[in-house]
Amino acid sequence: MTKPVKILLCGLGNVGRAFLELLAQRSSSIEVRYGLKLQLSAAVDIGGAAIKDDEGLDTARVLAHLVAGKRVEDFPDFGQPNITGQQAIDMTGAHVLVETTPTNLVDGEPGRTHIVTALQQAMEVVSANKGPIVLFYRELHELARQQGVGIHISAATAAALPTLDVGRVCLAGTELLEAEGILNGSTNFILTRMQNDGWDYNEALKEAQKLGIAETNPSLDVEGRDTANKLVLIANRLFDASLGPQDVQAQGITGVTSEDISAAAADGKVIKLIGTVKRTDAGLQLNVAPKRLDKDHPLAAVAGSEKAISYLTDTMDRITVSGGRSSPVGAAAALLKDLINAGIEH
Amino acid sequence: MTKPVKILLCGLGNVGRAFLELLAQRSSSIEVRYGLKLQLSAAVDIGGAAIKDDEGLDTARVLAHLVAGKRVEDFPDFGQPNITGQQAIDMTGAHVLVETTPTNLVDGEPGRTHIVTALQQAMEVVSANKGPIVLFYRELHELARQQGVGIHISAATAAALPTLDVGRVCLAGTELLEAEGILNGSTNFILTRMQNDGWDYNEALKEAQKLGIAETNPSLDVEGRDTANKLVLIANRLFDASLGPQDVQAQGITGVTSEDISAAAADGKVIKLIGTVKRTDAGLQLNVAPKRLDKDHPLAAVAGSEKAISYLTDTMDRITVSGGRSSPVGAAAALLKDLINAGIEH
Repeated sequence: MTKPVKILLCGLGNVGRAFLELLAQRSSSIEVRYGLKLQLSAAVDIGGAAIKDDEGLDTARVLAHLVAGKRVEDFPDFGQPNITGQQAIDMTGAHVLVETTPTNLVDGEPGRTHIVTALQQAMEVVSANKGPIVLFYRELHELARQQGVGIHISAATAAALPTLDVGRVCLAGTELLEAEGILNGSTNFILTRMQNDGWDYNEALKEAQKLGIAETNPSLDVEGRDTANKLVLIANRLFDASLGPQDVQAQGITGVTSEDISAAAADGKVIKLIGTVKRTDAGLQLNVAPKRLDKDHPLAAVAGSEKAISYLTDTMDRITVSGGRSSPVGAAAALLKDLINAGIEH
Repeated sequence: MTKPVKILLCGLGNVGRAFLELLAQRSSSIEVRYGLKLQLSAAVDIGGAAIKDDEGLDTARVLAHLVAGKRVEDFPDFGQPNITGQQAIDMTGAHVLVETTPTNLVDGEPGRTHIVTALQQAMEVVSANKGPIVLFYRELHELARQQGVGIHISAATAAALPTLDVGRVCLAGTELLEAEGILNGSTNFILTRMQNDGWDYNEALKEAQKLGIAETNPSLDVEGRDTANKLVLIANRLFDASLGPQDVQAQGITGVTSEDISAAAADGKVIKLIGTVKRTDAGLQLNVAPKRLDKDHPLAAVAGSEKAISYLTDTMDRITVSGGRSSPVGAAAALLKDLINAGIEH
């Protein structure tokens, strides 16, 4: 017995395209394995959409069209110019919104409007876009609850590194006492280079930029705010909080010097940018800062652009997860994972 | 809206009692958090049972009774001598069997009969007992499928270390290429002592036995068969196999000498007992053997009695999970986790 899952994809950048590629490659194996018939009702980008709500678009053809440098609104037969994400949602009967428009940390748009519109239609939401979720967690979560649907944000939290579903599924029934994470790949890459190769901060940053691991404007990463944003999502989802970025004390790595790293190494320690969520008597505390870890700390060996999270629980003790590809494919795989799990559960 | 979940617990040894304690402590918080009203219909041990199917037993009182050294069949008002697990299952209307009788790797009894009887009544099964699952995976799985229920075996696989639900949920939609694990805590403890303290195998084994980390008869662990059994469960559940213990090439650590460890260290490597499931052109290969790992291998830093598993996937790259308490409480927490997840999904 197969269950049809009609998808509306907003955003056709690197992650959106990687997601399209996974859909094209895997729809039939997913049907066999999970009993879900994934179907693309619409693909939307800034200039318009391709829509075929009844039978679904040919994902491989849409992808080839985009890869050839053409715009989605010019897709033969089904392209429609000047359709917005919101309009596309209203025009189709899709079950799931997959939201991959660029993260906007000022007002969350256009992702926020897409997500609100989808929730109002009782669609499940799967998002790689962290802007609206970080800024408007409480209102979106409340709307989803009222509509009896879910917002699935693995791809927004640490992409291929499983953070939220480890907490939710693998640690169900435990009391989470603390989460500590290396949640940003580019800062971990920079610190690892400083540590292993004796580089200074600026050399390591330039190398990260050259390799495409850090952005041209790296401030979101190196000032610790990307880590803080992911921490907010983890705290809200797993520690029953309703916090925003302003609730995190964040310090980045811009002040970490080669001397700090050498001094730590001389003490047998390693410096990592750690995001921490901790239950205290004064309530939940969220904090991002470079920390000196003992060599046998479970996060100490996480090197290069790799990420990791370590949960401390009451009954299962400590569980640490590390790895996961940092790339558009990794993020797309996280979207697909959430889509499958949402499809199975609902 | 709360959903009643009536539980029948077979086996009141250390794990069964730790599970009772969790039930006693957490039933109300689980009701709030997960909407599941956990209720103990019956607790069964070798001499009989306590049964109160309508409203459920007072778990704290049952536990106190057992801790005081009394037998469950003598539990005031509800104790019934000479009731077997099978009879108790037939007498109650429980939704879930929690099976914690001792692992029997010869014929799987009495767990096998309990599980078959429960499945025939379309009960969900949550098992810490690996005997019947390892020996009769295919037939039990097929019966469960026919009855539309599940067999949940986190506690049998590596207890508090999440292995199966990481593969099933966190890696949904990926292609699993390989799993490598340190799945047995006592052998890892022995190798770590040999490595860090220069002990020989026999000294380290004696220390492990003194600390209760290794059994008096350690052969199941040190010969690699416990690892092999867990590997079979992982292969069957996550790699769509139907294998048994006879399908694993298993070599243990009894032949590992201090000299081997020193020679490995001189090459910058560390010896670990690794269980591997690998897709090859010749089909799935399962193998247990001591291996020399590079210092930066994700399993190299897993020390002492800690366990870990590392999955290699196509789209998410490598994901490694480590940690988890090795104790009756850890196993009971894994049972509770499976129970909650089964309750939510069904």
